[in-house]
Parts: sequence; C-alpha cells; structure tokens
Amino acid sequence: MNLQPDTYQLQPIGIIHTPFSDPANTPIQFSRSNEKGEIAIDPEYEKGLQGIEDFSHLILLYVFHKSQDYQLLVKPFLDDHFTGIFTCRHPQRPNHLGLSVVKLLSRKDNRLLVQGVDMLDGTPIMDIKPYVADFDQQENVRVGWYSHRDHP
Amino acid sequence: MNLQPDTYQLQPIGIIHTPFSDPANTPIQFSRSNEKGEIAIDPEYEKGLQGIEDFSHLILLYVFHKSQDYQLLVKPFLDDHFTGIFTCRHPQRPNHLGLSVVKLLSRKDNRLLVQGVDMLDGTPIMDIKPYVADFDQQENVRVGWYSHRDHP
Repeated sequence: MNLQPDTYQLQPIGIIHTPFSDPANTPIQFSRSNEKGEIAIDPEYEKGLQGIEDFSHLILLYVFHKSQDYQLLVKPFLDDHFTGIFTCRHPQRPNHLGLSVVKLLSRKDNRLLVQGVDMLDGTPIMDIKPYVADFDQQENVRVGWYSHRDHP
Repeated sequence: MNLQPDTYQLQPIGIIHTPFSDPANTPIQFSRSNEKGEIAIDPEYEKGLQGIEDFSHLILLYVFHKSQDYQLLVKPFLDDHFTGIFTCRHPQRPNHLGLSVVKLLSRKDNRLLVQGVDMLDGTPIMDIKPYVADFDQQENVRVGWYSHRDHP
C-alpha cells in the first residue's frame, strides 16, 4: 500500500445553526427533514458566496463534531442489521465527515437560510458545493441494505 | 460570530488510482467521465466495506492534494465569468475537499473498481458514502451560472 501518511487539516468556513441539540431528536437524513437552519459563513469567506442565491440546492460538507469514535460495522438508523460504515451515513465513521443536501431559501450577506437540516446545532461546516442535476442525478441506482431495510 | 477556532484532522482511508497525472487532461466532472479507476482502501478499514458491492453508485469525498491555495472568486472550467468558489466545484477552495459520484463495477477485498473518475492519480480519499436515490435525487433544481454557461 502506498498509503500517504499525510494528515490534512480542515478549518471551518462557518457554523450551521439548527433546532437540534439532542442527537435522539435530530432527523434521520436531510431528505426527511423540513426544518430550517441558518449557515453563518465566516465573513472572511463571504465573497465566495457570490452568485449562490441563484442555486436552489446546496451540498453541505461538515464534521460530525460530537462523534469521537468510529465503528467499521454499524446498525444504520433505518435498519437492524450490521453493515459496513461506508455503506451508510452513520456519524461514527473515520474522519467524521457529514454530507447533507439542503434547499437554499435566502441569503443575507454571510448568512444562508436553508431548509432540510439534519445536523446538530453548532456543526462546523467545511465546504459548500452547488447541487447540479447534470452531475448529481444518477440513474439505475441500486441501494443494497436500504432497499430491504427494517424501518420505513 | 461564534466561529469555532478548532481545526479538524483528516487521515486518508485509502488512495484513488486513476489514469490522470496532469490536471489539464483530467475530465471536468465525474458525470463527463467514463474512465475507470481503482480505490485501494487501507486494510485496517476494509471491514467498513461490508455490503458495499450491493450499491451501484458511491459518493467519494477526497482532498485535492495538489491544490495549495484557494481563491474566493474563480472562473469555473465550464464558464468564462467569475463566480463564488462555493457556487462551483473548482479545486482551489478552502479546505480543498472534492466530491465525485462514481459507479461501482466490482470489489476485490480492499479494492474497488469504479467508473467515472475525474480526480488525479494518487488522490487521498477520506470517506465513501453510498449514493441513495431517496436522499440524493433533488427536484426543481436551479443551477445559477451553470444554466447559462459559456461552454457546453
């Protein structure tokens, strides 16, 4: 293995404010959430938001900052069977990176009002990418355990 | 701003091998690439792949390891006008995180053969998440500059 020994450092570009302080009461997946949240981008990065108000959906990359550990086999929240961590979105994963797609409702300066949040209040956000249907819509998708999950 | 001063450290879970060593000859977006690549996951994380062969598409999160700097306003590869870095997928971004969705062709132990790679050979991968249509298919998507881009 020519695995690089490097570590890479991330610094938050901002903070996501949501109604959720208790993991047990946080929605499972953004696609099941209608809750609104606000992303406060550090003013030093505000210029990087130019034109973002013309996009309807944003991909948020953030850190599950309350997850300390990781497991390689987990029970997904929607299933009762163990599966590999890389087959689900469970927060206890190596590198603790989270991904959510939210609707952008409005922007005021460095603040983005979004809908569909499923992360804890105070989550440090590392990147925002535009959701582009031409890139991000996949066809003929097979979804493993999710297609025969134990919970709807 | 209650921006957290924290930094977060990432360690690669593996390496992505692709045919591309020159950024100028690397596809623009995974959705425009049919090229095959191989993801070599560090054996210590191999157990986390359990069940992954039942998924057709994977979301790869990686680091643009050849990008040193970042710009807040960039010209996307597909357009001739400057736009905010958070409205495009350009590699010269804060935190240098990349995202690609690829097709999983096969798995052999810790190695995943995938199609649709658009990253440089040797790219350190930080996370794999399953692409799940129920989560990741968005409707009524508006795409800002991309909808009136200068290049097809």
